[in-house]
Amino acid sequence: MDTKTAGRPIRCKAAVARKAGEPLVIEEIIVAPPKSGEVRVRIICSSLCHSDVTFWELKDPPGYFPRIFGHESYGIIESIGEDVHDVAEGDTVVPIFLPDCGECNTCKSPKSNICSKLPFKVGPWMHREETSRFTDLKGETIYHFLFISSFSQYTVVDVAHIVKVDPQIPPDRACLLSCGVSTGVGAALKTADVETGSTVAIFGLGVIGLAVAEGARLRGAKRIIGVDVNEDKHEVGKKFGLTDFVNSRNCGDKPVSQVIMEMTDGGADYCFECVGMASLVHEAYACCRMGWGKTIVVGVDKPGALLSFTSYEVLHHGKTLVGSLFGNLKPKSDIQLLLKRYMDKELELDKFVTHEVSLEDINKAFELLKEGKSLRCVIWMDK
Amino acid sequence: MDTKTAGRPIRCKAAVARKAGEPLVIEEIIVAPPKSGEVRVRIICSSLCHSDVTFWELKDPPGYFPRIFGHESYGIIESIGEDVHDVAEGDTVVPIFLPDCGECNTCKSPKSNICSKLPFKVGPWMHREETSRFTDLKGETIYHFLFISSFSQYTVVDVAHIVKVDPQIPPDRACLLSCGVSTGVGAALKTADVETGSTVAIFGLGVIGLAVAEGARLRGAKRIIGVDVNEDKHEVGKKFGLTDFVNSRNCGDKPVSQVIMEMTDGGADYCFECVGMASLVHEAYACCRMGWGKTIVVGVDKPGALLSFTSYEVLHHGKTLVGSLFGNLKPKSDIQLLLKRYMDKELELDKFVTHEVSLEDINKAFELLKEGKSLRCVIWMDK
Repeated sequence: MDTKTAGRPIRCKAAVARKAGEPLVIEEIIVAPPKSGEVRVRIICSSLCHSDVTFWELKDPPGYFPRIFGHESYGIIESIGEDVHDVAEGDTVVPIFLPDCGECNTCKSPKSNICSKLPFKVGPWMHREETSRFTDLKGETIYHFLFISSFSQYTVVDVAHIVKVDPQIPPDRACLLSCGVSTGVGAALKTADVETGSTVAIFGLGVIGLAVAEGARLRGAKRIIGVDVNEDKHEVGKKFGLTDFVNSRNCGDKPVSQVIMEMTDGGADYCFECVGMASLVHEAYACCRMGWGKTIVVGVDKPGALLSFTSYEVLHHGKTLVGSLFGNLKPKSDIQLLLKRYMDKELELDKFVTHEVSLEDINKAFELLKEGKSLRCVIWMDK
Repeated sequence: MDTKTAGRPIRCKAAVARKAGEPLVIEEIIVAPPKSGEVRVRIICSSLCHSDVTFWELKDPPGYFPRIFGHESYGIIESIGEDVHDVAEGDTVVPIFLPDCGECNTCKSPKSNICSKLPFKVGPWMHREETSRFTDLKGETIYHFLFISSFSQYTVVDVAHIVKVDPQIPPDRACLLSCGVSTGVGAALKTADVETGSTVAIFGLGVIGLAVAEGARLRGAKRIIGVDVNEDKHEVGKKFGLTDFVNSRNCGDKPVSQVIMEMTDGGADYCFECVGMASLVHEAYACCRMGWGKTIVVGVDKPGALLSFTSYEVLHHGKTLVGSLFGNLKPKSDIQLLLKRYMDKELELDKFVTHEVSLEDINKAFELLKEGKSLRCVIWMDK
């Protein structure tokens, strides 16, 4: 705990994205003290998620530059702003991009994780006071990302985004639960509520899709079918419980949905779309089982992309379509439950981490993910 | 029980639809004996459902003529074909348009009511042997409708469509559970699983919509909002538990979804589309609550009509879209449960019956329904 810094700006290193798609620049920045309802966190490590890459590549809004990316992290609270009561300096925490104010009707309800007080968005500012806490050494404002911006040795986060975690948990495992892994595991356990003995099809075997497999494995699904265009994912997927693999480029004239219909004799009980392609949602919907099949939309396509179904199929096939944002997990309660399952050796997190680098080498993490060579690369902020 | 007729053709009266949209003709027809797996039923009464009217108006397939309509009925088994074991002559039964073979994986599962052995369709024939059991006195074939064709004093039905019911139940109440009322009540109780204290919005206050209200009332919904263009439905709806009414023609510049969003401070927990208009499904989806709202599609639009949603709203709003065919009810088990709730004075069926006529006056029933003046008109076959 560094009480010397509380209430004063901190000068530290950060990886700043200065231009869309160009290598991040490691530079010194100034991090302002937290305002009311905020905390300043010393980031220990951060893992790279595909959303960081997606928004880093966007030239126009919601792409903003200069910006500090990063939203899967683990850190220690350095200081707290006014009106912060639930956490204190020295607490080990996992910041989560999805707000959980704990006060509104939605946050109080066990049924939803979409806070109605602090709307989730991909803006460039803090929540309650729409300004930045970052400036560069020339005094220029640096934008936030997803309310977290963890590719910095220090960051400021609204308490609605802070989950306190047991300091026994290794930082490079805890940080994984900030986004991708939780999204997939939650989609299987909470949104779909996968039943023991059921059949699951997963479209897209990035970290989210593999985490869906991990969730389905935890629930004892009998069959877990992975679909991807990258043949390497077949071998990778086995570690996550995949029983079958379909390379959607090798289906000949058949749509992949038909291949899965034939493999499963009538369709999977649960289909997860984890890529963010409207056309794949249709494939997923087409091969989930008539009568009770559920299609869970985990990926999001470009703005304006439409998911269309005929009125007839929706009514007559009795299927369910549901979106799953952050796996329906409520950050402040469910993340701790998942971490407990990790500590109890049920939820296997280690296999998601394929690489680690120091902050200086953060651009290598971007390259690995873009090339499909990594699952999660952990970036250590002090190395 | 009339054993004299078993195994022989029966000559009886029926209301035959000879041409699309033209008055039915009461004439004598010949009803063949039941084949293997079929029963012949003496129809006591039949109620008129909107699907009868819709298909009666269709000039081209799936419109077929001459045809005997009617699929909400009550009757007594006159004779059984070979390989019929579960029912016998003299049993009081409710024929149901949705098959329940009891043998396939789907029928054995509690999760689905879509039989995988005998597919539901709106064809002109019997199931297992695609022929008709009806001829007119000139020997011309008369087509079946929805596997039931109950606007005849006798009809032949596959046993997969037969639900045996307690003879204590009044025929003109039991017949209501064959289609519309069950569809709506089931959509509320089973598909949506409406919770006590919740808010429900119902688009379209025909019998199905009112039956949704009845189901929501049974579950103790706090608020039941009905939407219709017919102002008369406001008063009618009150008997079914409606707490609010919105005339969608009187919303000014606002879409009806916005009006409901404002009335409910953020959306209804459950929205039911009971008209069969793709545009109304969008309205329903738009005003079901973010995070946990469910939109239940009960009506079906024209072939090819599309339901389109943006990828963004599906993922980020966390809403569920689900189709409900026959209210997800399994005919052979759930209908008896609903009839028990009627006998226990919980489920109120009487209020659905607004008119009754003799077979001779069946065209009056069609007129009343087309004009929106009736809910259910019971047609007595022997009068």
